[in-house]
Amino acid sequence: MATKTAPTLVDIEAARGRILGHARATPVYGSETLSRRYGRRVWLKAENLQRTGSFKVRGAVNKLSLLGTEERAAGVIAASAGNHGQAVAWAARELGIKSTVFMPQDAPMAKVEATRNYGAETVLAGAGFDDALAAATERARETGATFVHAFEDEAVIAGQGTIGLELADELREVETFVLPVGGGGVAAGIAIALRALRPGVRIVGVQAGKTGRGTIADGIAVKHPGELTMSILGDQLDDLVHVEDESIAEAITVLLERAKLVVEGAGAAATAALLDGTVGGDGEACVLLSGGNIDPTMLISVMRHGLTLAGRYLVFRTKIADRPGSLVELLELIAAERGNVVSVDHHREGMAIDVVETEVSLTVITRDENHCGQLITALESRGYRVDRFR
Amino acid sequence: MATKTAPTLVDIEAARGRILGHARATPVYGSETLSRRYGRRVWLKAENLQRTGSFKVRGAVNKLSLLGTEERAAGVIAASAGNHGQAVAWAARELGIKSTVFMPQDAPMAKVEATRNYGAETVLAGAGFDDALAAATERARETGATFVHAFEDEAVIAGQGTIGLELADELREVETFVLPVGGGGVAAGIAIALRALRPGVRIVGVQAGKTGRGTIADGIAVKHPGELTMSILGDQLDDLVHVEDESIAEAITVLLERAKLVVEGAGAAATAALLDGTVGGDGEACVLLSGGNIDPTMLISVMRHGLTLAGRYLVFRTKIADRPGSLVELLELIAAERGNVVSVDHHREGMAIDVVETEVSLTVITRDENHCGQLITALESRGYRVDRFR
Repeated sequence: MATKTAPTLVDIEAARGRILGHARATPVYGSETLSRRYGRRVWLKAENLQRTGSFKVRGAVNKLSLLGTEERAAGVIAASAGNHGQAVAWAARELGIKSTVFMPQDAPMAKVEATRNYGAETVLAGAGFDDALAAATERARETGATFVHAFEDEAVIAGQGTIGLELADELREVETFVLPVGGGGVAAGIAIALRALRPGVRIVGVQAGKTGRGTIADGIAVKHPGELTMSILGDQLDDLVHVEDESIAEAITVLLERAKLVVEGAGAAATAALLDGTVGGDGEACVLLSGGNIDPTMLISVMRHGLTLAGRYLVFRTKIADRPGSLVELLELIAAERGNVVSVDHHREGMAIDVVETEVSLTVITRDENHCGQLITALESRGYRVDRFR
Repeated sequence: MATKTAPTLVDIEAARGRILGHARATPVYGSETLSRRYGRRVWLKAENLQRTGSFKVRGAVNKLSLLGTEERAAGVIAASAGNHGQAVAWAARELGIKSTVFMPQDAPMAKVEATRNYGAETVLAGAGFDDALAAATERARETGATFVHAFEDEAVIAGQGTIGLELADELREVETFVLPVGGGGVAAGIAIALRALRPGVRIVGVQAGKTGRGTIADGIAVKHPGELTMSILGDQLDDLVHVEDESIAEAITVLLERAKLVVEGAGAAATAALLDGTVGGDGEACVLLSGGNIDPTMLISVMRHGLTLAGRYLVFRTKIADRPGSLVELLELIAAERGNVVSVDHHREGMAIDVVETEVSLTVITRDENHCGQLITALESRGYRVDRFR
């Protein structure tokens, strides 16, 4: 296998020509809320609005465009239960190439269907990603199809780097670019383009998740970072910072509420680093929203959590007398403080409860953390003990 | 008061020049999912990505740009607890004009703060919108400030009509345009522009809500439609259809999951009409996503509802024996069918429950309606009676 070398600006500019008419040149939006919070002008590069919902189609289209007639006839293969699989399926359909995408057996049905809807044959193989990967490379060897790696490939990196060309064109005043790093393909490609066109900018990579633990930023929770991408990033990045799920959940909620954009965990990691204050540098900043493919049930959980942290939900437990009218009294008091009760759970059994008392758990929609404080004070001044969940 | 007349294409083209550099020319996206479902190519005009989260800034900037020096010095006044108030506040700040926005006393704190953050003085006046409106017009009379109506104003209608210019430029193949109708300003402005530039297209208005009942499309639940806008729409619309909240909730969920866009109730009404199949016409269709300012707690409720309708949540009640292990048996059966249980509520009191039985309510994440059906069949074949909530 030939040693892989980093793509150059020329490769990335050639990729731009190849993806034209396939991938979108995604918009960049100034975010007033983030600018105010961060004290610097903040721009959002909205790759969540890219076709298939992530930047991955750029690399896939570039890679597949470079295949010769015989290679195209033999088809392409990828291993991915996520954005890369959907991107390869989509790019193959755009270019009239047959694609097969291998996924672990427990891949979410929504992902399997999305990949199939983009025209790929899907194969569920093995218990985890590594098994699916082994099956995919084996199939490529048997059939002569081209295996498309998600990031450890010059053409894929060059394709993702086209984002850097758009950023250099559009954001002439930005001094700091913040990019999520999983396999490292998109950060490597963008960094090569930006270093060539805007040598003085600061480029910060963001990683999420801990070894052996899940993260909501599953798109950048990569077990085996690429040699090629890591070598590029080692040369190009000014800093590599880490974000926790709490910050990512808050970033997803802020982007949803303020920017009206749906962003997946990995796609919100750069914004989360900005909110954490770990990015450093001066002047205007741009964060890459790398994708928007978040499961809606996960999004609901994240939003509930983000809103609770922001004081927009008050979830608490208290005790009331076990007699008629006592729940009404509690609810009237909450209403007087303008809390909007969305759920009440009664717990009549349990160890810590007096025979003349009932425990209730309430979820109340509140305006902000101050409002939560007022509500708790009002309840406590009337003798309720408030046991808050966070 | 002079009789108001409809703006012309010339007025709308002049407005385009005035809003340049203030409002965004928002993107148009093709939606693969909606195109597949609808059997026609579907385009989304994303005014939810407009500044302040709705199209209203177009009209506000155009109106305020037309004020003379003395009028600007006297300031502007609006009555709105929603998108119009935020738009007037934002436009006034852009043009260096003082603004005051009147809202009912029970306006959501988030809306009050958003309006204040855009630089307006906010006044909470009266129990409902009509009282706030009366107070606003009274204040305008006293102070000589200009009262900016949300839709019954030629300059405002011309500003909203700039969307029609962008659509005519970008979507040369579209045969049907679907527009939400509340006060009617945006539909009137767009219709005037489109009729002038693309005379043959079909233009369909969409209304939501019933008299005296709330709707999640509160932005288009207007009690007093405008005389001017209704006269324009009477001339220009090919059809006016009605959508229910169920369809709007589904449209919000589809747009969020597939297009990665956050859209408010009124902003999803046109998409809902498309999904309902009531729009008619042939060929490519474009729906206006008029705004994205939905409260996140409301969005969570809508998504849960939308996902439940789509079979992505199964919410049901059943009975289990009141003895150790019976709940575990039920949960093991659900796990074997690959349902992901997210909540379990025990109800040990109640009229319809046998003394040896306990009622439980469960919420299970499911793949789709088929999966719900399989799960219910599996439960029933093991003797559970399943009482499903929809």
